Amino acid sequence: MSIRRWEIFELTFTGPKEGNPFEEQSIGATFSGPEGTKAVHGFYDGDGVYKVRFMPAEEGTYTYEVHSSFPAVLQNAAHDTAVHNAAADHAADFDAASLTGTFTVLPAAEGVHGPVRVTNKYHFAYADGTMYYPVGTTCYVWAFQNEALQEQTLKTLSEGYFNKIRFCVFPKHYVYNLHEPISYPYEGTPMDSSVLTPENFNNYNGMADGNSWNFRRFNPAHFRHIEESIAKLGALGIEADLILFHPYDRWGFSEMSHEDDLFYLRYLTARFSAFRNVWWSFANEYDLMKAKSHADWQELGACVVENDPYDHLRSIHNCIEFYDHTEPWITHACIQRQDLYRTTEYTNEWRERFGKPIIADEISYEGDIQYAWGNISGQEMTRRFWEAAVRGGYAGHGETFLGHSQENTGAPDCLENVLWWSHGGKLYGDCPARLRFLQQILKETPGPGLKRLDREWDDSAAVPDVPGPVYDYYLFYFGFFRPSFREFDIPEGVVFEAEVIDTWEMTVKNIGRFTGKCCIPLPGKEYMALRLKKVQ
Amino acid sequence: MSIRRWEIFELTFTGPKEGNPFEEQSIGATFSGPEGTKAVHGFYDGDGVYKVRFMPAEEGTYTYEVHSSFPAVLQNAAHDTAVHNAAADHAADFDAASLTGTFTVLPAAEGVHGPVRVTNKYHFAYADGTMYYPVGTTCYVWAFQNEALQEQTLKTLSEGYFNKIRFCVFPKHYVYNLHEPISYPYEGTPMDSSVLTPENFNNYNGMADGNSWNFRRFNPAHFRHIEESIAKLGALGIEADLILFHPYDRWGFSEMSHEDDLFYLRYLTARFSAFRNVWWSFANEYDLMKAKSHADWQELGACVVENDPYDHLRSIHNCIEFYDHTEPWITHACIQRQDLYRTTEYTNEWRERFGKPIIADEISYEGDIQYAWGNISGQEMTRRFWEAAVRGGYAGHGETFLGHSQENTGAPDCLENVLWWSHGGKLYGDCPARLRFLQQILKETPGPGLKRLDREWDDSAAVPDVPGPVYDYYLFYFGFFRPSFREFDIPEGVVFEAEVIDTWEMTVKNIGRFTGKCCIPLPGKEYMALRLKKVQ
Repeated sequence: MSIRRWEIFELTFTGPKEGNPFEEQSIGATFSGPEGTKAVHGFYDGDGVYKVRFMPAEEGTYTYEVHSSFPAVLQNAAHDTAVHNAAADHAADFDAASLTGTFTVLPAAEGVHGPVRVTNKYHFAYADGTMYYPVGTTCYVWAFQNEALQEQTLKTLSEGYFNKIRFCVFPKHYVYNLHEPISYPYEGTPMDSSVLTPENFNNYNGMADGNSWNFRRFNPAHFRHIEESIAKLGALGIEADLILFHPYDRWGFSEMSHEDDLFYLRYLTARFSAFRNVWWSFANEYDLMKAKSHADWQELGACVVENDPYDHLRSIHNCIEFYDHTEPWITHACIQRQDLYRTTEYTNEWRERFGKPIIADEISYEGDIQYAWGNISGQEMTRRFWEAAVRGGYAGHGETFLGHSQENTGAPDCLENVLWWSHGGKLYGDCPARLRFLQQILKETPGPGLKRLDREWDDSAAVPDVPGPVYDYYLFYFGFFRPSFREFDIPEGVVFEAEVIDTWEMTVKNIGRFTGKCCIPLPGKEYMALRLKKVQ
Repeated sequence: MSIRRWEIFELTFTGPKEGNPFEEQSIGATFSGPEGTKAVHGFYDGDGVYKVRFMPAEEGTYTYEVHSSFPAVLQNAAHDTAVHNAAADHAADFDAASLTGTFTVLPAAEGVHGPVRVTNKYHFAYADGTMYYPVGTTCYVWAFQNEALQEQTLKTLSEGYFNKIRFCVFPKHYVYNLHEPISYPYEGTPMDSSVLTPENFNNYNGMADGNSWNFRRFNPAHFRHIEESIAKLGALGIEADLILFHPYDRWGFSEMSHEDDLFYLRYLTARFSAFRNVWWSFANEYDLMKAKSHADWQELGACVVENDPYDHLRSIHNCIEFYDHTEPWITHACIQRQDLYRTTEYTNEWRERFGKPIIADEISYEGDIQYAWGNISGQEMTRRFWEAAVRGGYAGHGETFLGHSQENTGAPDCLENVLWWSHGGKLYGDCPARLRFLQQILKETPGPGLKRLDREWDDSAAVPDVPGPVYDYYLFYFGFFRPSFREFDIPEGVVFEAEVIDTWEMTVKNIGRFTGKCCIPLPGKEYMALRLKKVQ
């Protein structure tokens, strides 16, 4: 049998249901192929079903050997997941006695480039070398809303505005987020949420009274649903930046014991790691999770490093205090800004400080809610993305329109609002189309990403992120400054073609060739960029 | 005879013309009255004419005694200045033998409040106690343009947009500022300016070849003209923030010897101090004047402190590095921002650092020129003023529209452009009317100024600058944030009247009374403010 490169090879077995299989049983396999040998953990999927997944990184022939704590019997029936499942073919290449088998990996499907990795220190590329310029959004618990709303979210995402989305594994309890999720991650029962109001919800935090959960018995349906969501995002070319822990909680998932946290991460990595588009975001606002110490976070990081055979990207997001993103287990700095006014203008400083890719993943959202973290304009949001880009970094989107939400849901109070930031649904803002445009411009960058060019103090200029000093490509961004021209002193014999990019109107206009000491005319409007390409 | 409080009592004498009267002769007087005794220096005004000026701070009877290095003869003829000149009346109360006299000071004229002083540590008030909220502009060399342009500037200023203007005593050599001024401060001849082009002007700096000046012989007409300008501004209720030194120079006025600088300051203080609306701005961008040491500046400061009997306000403006505004000779911090993005958002930090009033007098200008210091929008400029105001500080305006200038002058190159920032003339920007509106709102502040209220991290809230914790008046400003409501928790029994201030549309809308835990609705638009006034 065969699958394609970076798809999931999945084996499904039956085994014991007795006792607590999550704790008491284990299954795993060793895969050998052109990339060498990899050991992967399997997991218990409930109802006496066990699974082992593997994502091959190379084309060619792979062999594998399964080991388990019980007599594993291969099933021909595919489980009800949306992931690629070639189980029907497996039997032919599987030896039931030795639990060994073989399969072939064919070239990747059209548009499949593999997992995203760090490249050129500050940037990202897919495993096949194609550059990846993150333009992400956040919908914390979109996957736990009703089915119609999930469909609406996916429809919106199919417009291509974003190529990454941050969302949670655990449900969320927060302002505008008081209703029950469609499922819970553990066996048990939640507190009675009918007592909650927008006024009193803050009194129910962490392990609130009335919850009863078994943190050693997962609810496989919850994780299966997340997998389906990851796969649907993958089909849209969108990376799934999974938030593993967060403090917005009334059930106790933010206050489990350290051992339960590790137990959860081992289950998560066994289930999700084989998805090529998974990223691990260890926390949203880690510093608000007072029950976890720095040593805890370090061990949680080490646990994922150890249990994810594919080395997916790892980050940890702050509220106020940055985590030390220089820690080796962290692949890139996922940053919430600490300043209401300057946000992504700090990108180059952060690059220097952390020596890793910068994603400023909370820089205020486009919207109109009461908080400054959720009520900037589309212009300001778009500007913040561009300011990040021309400093060699990246930003993250979110949207919080209360007015539009109320128009659409007719909700009388905060309980039923649908805000993209948390629930997904429709987008009402002005910036998503502009972010798609930015993504297109970034894709046109020659070489491995952009970096800030240190020029005059009043320039935000970027060049390809390679050693200088001579560049064939310049991208200037003027933000809220409105020059009607800029002066350039181009060396003798060098000619640049100039394009004025209106980042708001999403137009690119060729304004001719320039050489020597020259004035390049500009529109004297906000949000303009100037691109220079060397033509001789 | 009599004058009104805070007007100028001026005595004009004839004396020797021989030699160099500026250096070789001296005249002065001692005035005694309800405020005590004050010694003032007179000055040589050319053509054998000497003057002594005095501004009385109190109502009542004053006596005076003149002393001079020559036999001084009182003239009845008023000199051709625009200042109040009661010389015709003086003779009657003057004893020519003893050089003594007497006069009466009547109550101040309508609208005259005296010189501006620091009050309540961070704010300003006129001498009669009326609060003064600076909303200033900059027209560096408006007074040295042709007469028609000066008239245009005064006409524009009569619209009441501003109550302060910064301008220079010396002419200016800079981009867009290459033509000759109408007069020079010294006897001598300037370099031939016909050689200057927008490309080469930077090669002519400081004491450029071809200049020939006698730094010990002033050109009285130059200073007389500045006095007339100060008086005209005074009649419009505008403070004249005189820039004493600046580096934009091709004549050598920025590189005189330290002794010549002191000689100049003694002349300036003798001439100008009696004008109630004079402020001393020691430098524009002091740190670009490499010929002057810190010790030099300290001595220049001390010289003005010693020679200005009225203790007018004193400041010193930076390019990059702030002067140490805690120096006792400095009355308030005049600041050029060091950051392209955050400007007046630093106001509260600067207040703490310097312990003095803050005027952020260069925060980028509304315009469209090539430099980031001169091409922000009217919205952004207005926002920066409000951000200063709600932090208990003040900002400064300027305008640099190249496009409008070219439309109006038809000028083919940079030489003849008329930009408000330097030349005055007309204003084309959107913000001046909004700044007048802000000034009106500030005048409605109860008590001695505003200060930032430390509340939530995302509030820019101001309260009267008096000890807390209970306030009757709150001014919230939301800047580019767009809340559709804000939550308040007003103590039991207290009621506030709420007004939504649209700082851009310049409207104030009463939206009713609020008490207890409440949501105050807001427009969900940029640039809104909310004013709460306690009504019970």
